[in-house]
Amino acid sequence: MASETGRIEAFSDGVFSIAATLLVLDLKPPPEALPFWRGLAAQWPGFLSFLLSFLFIGIMWINHHRLFSHIRRADEVLMAVNLLLLLGVVWVPYPTSLMTQSVGTARMRDAALLYNGSYVVIALLFNLLLSTCASRQLVDRSYLGVKNIAKRYAVGPTLYLVCLVVTWWSVPASLALNGAMALYFLLSPDTSLRVHRTDGG
Amino acid sequence: MASETGRIEAFSDGVFSIAATLLVLDLKPPPEALPFWRGLAAQWPGFLSFLLSFLFIGIMWINHHRLFSHIRRADEVLMAVNLLLLLGVVWVPYPTSLMTQSVGTARMRDAALLYNGSYVVIALLFNLLLSTCASRQLVDRSYLGVKNIAKRYAVGPTLYLVCLVVTWWSVPASLALNGAMALYFLLSPDTSLRVHRTDGG
Amino acid sequence: MASETGRIEAFSDGVFSIAATLLVLDLKPPPEALPFWRGLAAQWPGFLSFLLSFLFIGIMWINHHRLFSHIRRADEVLMAVNLLLLLGVVWVPYPTSLMTQSVGTARMRDAALLYNGSYVVIALLFNLLLSTCASRQLVDRSYLGVKNIAKRYAVGPTLYLVCLVVTWWSVPASLALNGAMALYFLLSPDTSLRVHRTDGG
Amino acid sequence: MASETGRIEAFSDGVFSIAATLLVLDLKPPPEALPFWRGLAAQWPGFLSFLLSFLFIGIMWINHHRLFSHIRRADEVLMAVNLLLLLGVVWVPYPTSLMTQSVGTARMRDAALLYNGSYVVIALLFNLLLSTCASRQLVDRSYLGVKNIAKRYAVGPTLYLVCLVVTWWSVPASLALNGAMALYFLLSPDTSLRVHRTDGG
Repeated sequence: MASETGRIEAFSDGVFSIAATLLVLDLKPPPEALPFWRGLAAQWPGFLSFLLSFLFIGIMWINHHRLFSHIRRADEVLMAVNLLLLLGVVWVPYPTSLMTQSVGTARMRDAALLYNGSYVVIALLFNLLLSTCASRQLVDRSYLGVKNIAKRYAVGPTLYLVCLVVTWWSVPASLALNGAMALYFLLSPDTSLRVHRTDGG
Repeated sequence: MASETGRIEAFSDGVFSIAATLLVLDLKPPPEALPFWRGLAAQWPGFLSFLLSFLFIGIMWINHHRLFSHIRRADEVLMAVNLLLLLGVVWVPYPTSLMTQSVGTARMRDAALLYNGSYVVIALLFNLLLSTCASRQLVDRSYLGVKNIAKRYAVGPTLYLVCLVVTWWSVPASLALNGAMALYFLLSPDTSLRVHRTDGG
Repeated sequence: MASETGRIEAFSDGVFSIAATLLVLDLKPPPEALPFWRGLAAQWPGFLSFLLSFLFIGIMWINHHRLFSHIRRADEVLMAVNLLLLLGVVWVPYPTSLMTQSVGTARMRDAALLYNGSYVVIALLFNLLLSTCASRQLVDRSYLGVKNIAKRYAVGPTLYLVCLVVTWWSVPASLALNGAMALYFLLSPDTSLRVHRTDGG
Repeated sequence: MASETGRIEAFSDGVFSIAATLLVLDLKPPPEALPFWRGLAAQWPGFLSFLLSFLFIGIMWINHHRLFSHIRRADEVLMAVNLLLLLGVVWVPYPTSLMTQSVGTARMRDAALLYNGSYVVIALLFNLLLSTCASRQLVDRSYLGVKNIAKRYAVGPTLYLVCLVVTWWSVPASLALNGAMALYFLLSPDTSLRVHRTDGG
């Protein structure tokens, strides 16, 4: 069984790492007309989208990793739901690319709506995966303060939904919020660690 | 021996996950001439092909995973046949791309024939892998209601052949059937679960 | 130690599977001017290069897998030599692409020389890896009919060298020989199996 | 716990191997106007950048592998810092591509500054990973001559900083130094082996 979960993780790790790495293909060279460093600076929308999406995929991977470290049994439903989540992850480079291209154009708001909206959906898919594990009792006993976990992870889609709403008001603010969320999730490990300790030890 | 199978799975997982992820590179930005959301909607053939092919590769991976969880011994023939199956998987992005480009053009039927025909061949390669495992006795005892398994998996190529035939009559119908099959394979885990229980427990 | 080798294999599996999968990105759509199937047929140089290179990478992977199943201990020299081999594998899509583009042009012979020459070098790098394992005693005892193994693997570079020489005389003949070698390596598992039995059991 | 580290390694291996393999996508065909081999020779900046970056990523992977073989426990901070390092690795193909395109143009110095500067930052991120492991006591006891290790690894950013400074004076000299460092790191395994023996045995 362990090895069964192992292969789901291997396939997922492949998808996560490839999707994260493909993001670099979308970075364009600085335009020839400008001096190098000013041309590079003019590419900031690409760098920003690259950074936000890489962190988003990376954090999704960390969450995926954390969840699967508690899964003891895999079944077909889990594999199907996991596949849907991976579909979301594979999708990420597309809205990222549109976001990059649209900065400073009339389509920026629309692209940002697609971008933040995609994150809401992917965060919801992650919560679907989590609730699948809970309802099918695939996670180990020590994790069965699952409702709390579920509440904790519900923070993700909620915050990305706020991001989405903020987009109507201001695209830069929505991206800043998106980035702040990534940094918060990445740099506040103490909370997560506490979870680990509570559940696992 | 376990680790020998393990590496075949790792290489296969790599190929499956990369082929699935590369599909996103084929999604084109909405044409500048249209408003964003209408332009995006005009890209539906790309999204549909992306979705169908991702699900196809994902389901092939699930089947591959399920089969290999029963393989106890690997030999050179298995590796060669597995390599042929992976060749098929790596091929998938190409007919997918042609399918996307040809929607609404005179070549749509031909591209759909290539697309559905590729699926027939890949499904046959999977059955070749299965029968290789059976005839060379590489699967474990509990799986040796193998003929039933073989019959079950024969459903795949048969249905994709039906898809292929339907293509002559109507391309949209063939794609709808293709999608329905993906959803059926993905969302009807109960049958598969029963198999698991019968064979493994 | 097992896990140390395990990670070298994981990194190598990644490189092998990605290099093999990236080959599909080089397949071009059939030209619009021709009917679909004739345009597709006109792409045969791309399909042939794709097939040959995929099989070459796949067979290199099988050999790599077989060798590493006998490696019990990894050291820094092994990692460095393995990295050089992987450099060769990563290189493959480039001469493949040039081969495809040059079929039917005046540069076909030159591109085929680069293509077959690359295979000679990569096969030599594999033999360097093998002799590194032998001289540093990294393989297990039962494999220490190593000289015979070395002789067997020396067949690879020799045959690819023949391919390279044949290229001067006839490019199609060199590609046909290249393909025949791939099929031979792939479809004659009995010899390899015998090796396995002799060494491992 | 072992398996927890295992998955971080799997994700990292994926990112390292994909970033290294994507480098090949940037190799351009020789210009049609020149004879094949002279056209190929004219692509030397691409081959040089490809080689340097592949070796850089490969050596970073070897170091990452070596470090993780001593890590016994993973926590959230480790995952976050590891993610930053991977962000650096994913970034590599971009300055590599700019370096290639700018050889022989007025922007060569600037591109080389970005290139060598990226290496400094990535080497610093690796040292941040190392010091995270040390300060959070994630590595095993036998490795706790960690300060020496830290000193050893501090060589990396220092040398890449020298590379960066040399770039102002001469771009070719900086690239030559960069390559010499790669060869030194790759071909001087005796030192590294001694470390292994001292720490591990």
